[in-house]
Amino acid sequence: MKICWYNQQQLGAIVDGKVHDVSAALEALPAARYPAAPGDLLCANLDTLRAAIERLLPGAASIPVAQARFLSPVANPGKIIGVPVNYADHVAEANADQATFTDRYKGPIREQGLFLKAASSLVGPAEGVALRFPQRLTHHELELGVVIGKTAANVPLDQALSYVAGYAIALDMTVRGPEDRSLRKSVDSYSVLGPWLVTADEIADAQRLGMRLTVNGTPRQQANTAEMIIGIAEQIAWASSYYTLYPGDIIMSGTCAGVGQVLPGDLIECAIEGVGAMAVAVRASGN
Amino acid sequence: MKICWYNQQQLGAIVDGKVHDVSAALEALPAARYPAAPGDLLCANLDTLRAAIERLLPGAASIPVAQARFLSPVANPGKIIGVPVNYADHVAEANADQATFTDRYKGPIREQGLFLKAASSLVGPAEGVALRFPQRLTHHELELGVVIGKTAANVPLDQALSYVAGYAIALDMTVRGPEDRSLRKSVDSYSVLGPWLVTADEIADAQRLGMRLTVNGTPRQQANTAEMIIGIAEQIAWASSYYTLYPGDIIMSGTCAGVGQVLPGDLIECAIEGVGAMAVAVRASGN
Repeated sequence: MKICWYNQQQLGAIVDGKVHDVSAALEALPAARYPAAPGDLLCANLDTLRAAIERLLPGAASIPVAQARFLSPVANPGKIIGVPVNYADHVAEANADQATFTDRYKGPIREQGLFLKAASSLVGPAEGVALRFPQRLTHHELELGVVIGKTAANVPLDQALSYVAGYAIALDMTVRGPEDRSLRKSVDSYSVLGPWLVTADEIADAQRLGMRLTVNGTPRQQANTAEMIIGIAEQIAWASSYYTLYPGDIIMSGTCAGVGQVLPGDLIECAIEGVGAMAVAVRASGN
Repeated sequence: MKICWYNQQQLGAIVDGKVHDVSAALEALPAARYPAAPGDLLCANLDTLRAAIERLLPGAASIPVAQARFLSPVANPGKIIGVPVNYADHVAEANADQATFTDRYKGPIREQGLFLKAASSLVGPAEGVALRFPQRLTHHELELGVVIGKTAANVPLDQALSYVAGYAIALDMTVRGPEDRSLRKSVDSYSVLGPWLVTADEIADAQRLGMRLTVNGTPRQQANTAEMIIGIAEQIAWASSYYTLYPGDIIMSGTCAGVGQVLPGDLIECAIEGVGAMAVAVRASGN
């Protein structure tokens, strides 16, 4: 199933090129409480929600996908985890240009460690990217986004994929410079997730998905998730050995070669096989 | 006012050495919704809550402070922000021991940048610290915790302190090693905040507070917040130039010299002038 948040925070299901309004399915979720337990309520109750969506679909109003404004498919993420240097060709391009990528970040993945992006940086494709620092280099990084569906602590490698709720396209927007990654990658709107959540059962093998990104129609990034140095299961096992993963936590699983600058007015278009496609407009902050 | 979460997630106000149960004041808060707007509901509605607490206090049941189990005074933090190398004596001790502190983290604060800790790592003092990696060096870092009260984006320096809801004692527990700070500092229970939130109006000058930490009674860290290299107002202005700060976001404002190892069975005791004192037990993970 493909599930989205769209327009005025409506809940949608995508079938046959149309977004069906299944907002009424939210009534099947437990009531929101304060203080809230950790985790996104939708991702934590995905099976219940899917059953409610199935019941609503036959009578749901719909609009064409092209007319929908897609928000982030995770509404209340707890944490966004990044995986550095996870494609050999990106490692090579970074090593070849230390002036841009700085020498602070060197060594293999296990030594560099996973990083965090602020949950407040998350937007959907329709919201676009607002460039905060026009005088600094800001890069697009295309990645497969992995959304956690069950609370995961110290998960063994061979069970790790059972904790995945689904997948989405992720853009890990990055200001280049010497500062901590968790600062440079956490600017408002610098984490894009979309256009929808494809539930894990629809993806036969998440480690065999082609992905590509263009800017204003010019190809920039192209790869296959088979090229990851550390696969998704290992990412989940590793992350959960440090901290508990909760439903709605997002892992951005690393970018491939071809990262490059974007400027106000640019249009980033990206697609991942089996997931979908999305277009993300770049503007200056304040516009 | 001193406000806390304690025992079974009850809301308390501390007056005359007693914790008064003012949980009924939570009814004054707006209803929880899903999806939730960013920000901790209590911190976002502190004025409303304080008025309700004042009304309840005369008739509230109470227990001595010593009998209360204090949880984190922020129940639903969005992000926890760390400030590296912010006391000259800690910079000196780190520079003098690169084997422990690694050479990846060098340069002044503005160059190293703020970092993030996972919100899922946050606990209160009564919950204690569970050491996850017995074979690795884990350090205590005593810090003044700053809790944001109002949504803050691109805040000017001279207005920054008006965005503070209050203060608490913070422990930024840290596994030493080469990995990204946002991984090594985000282990479950490695962010301790407590014992309560002292609202900003009770602190005449947050940049003139003595603080100290002992382990099993032996003094380890002692400093004054006057020694910060970058003060709290500048931290807020800087952070908000990258990302929006929301009510309940926490800034751990940097640690002073004397950081050191803790082991299972240790008792960390810390105090900050005008804020309070708390004891935090250290155990092995799984115990």
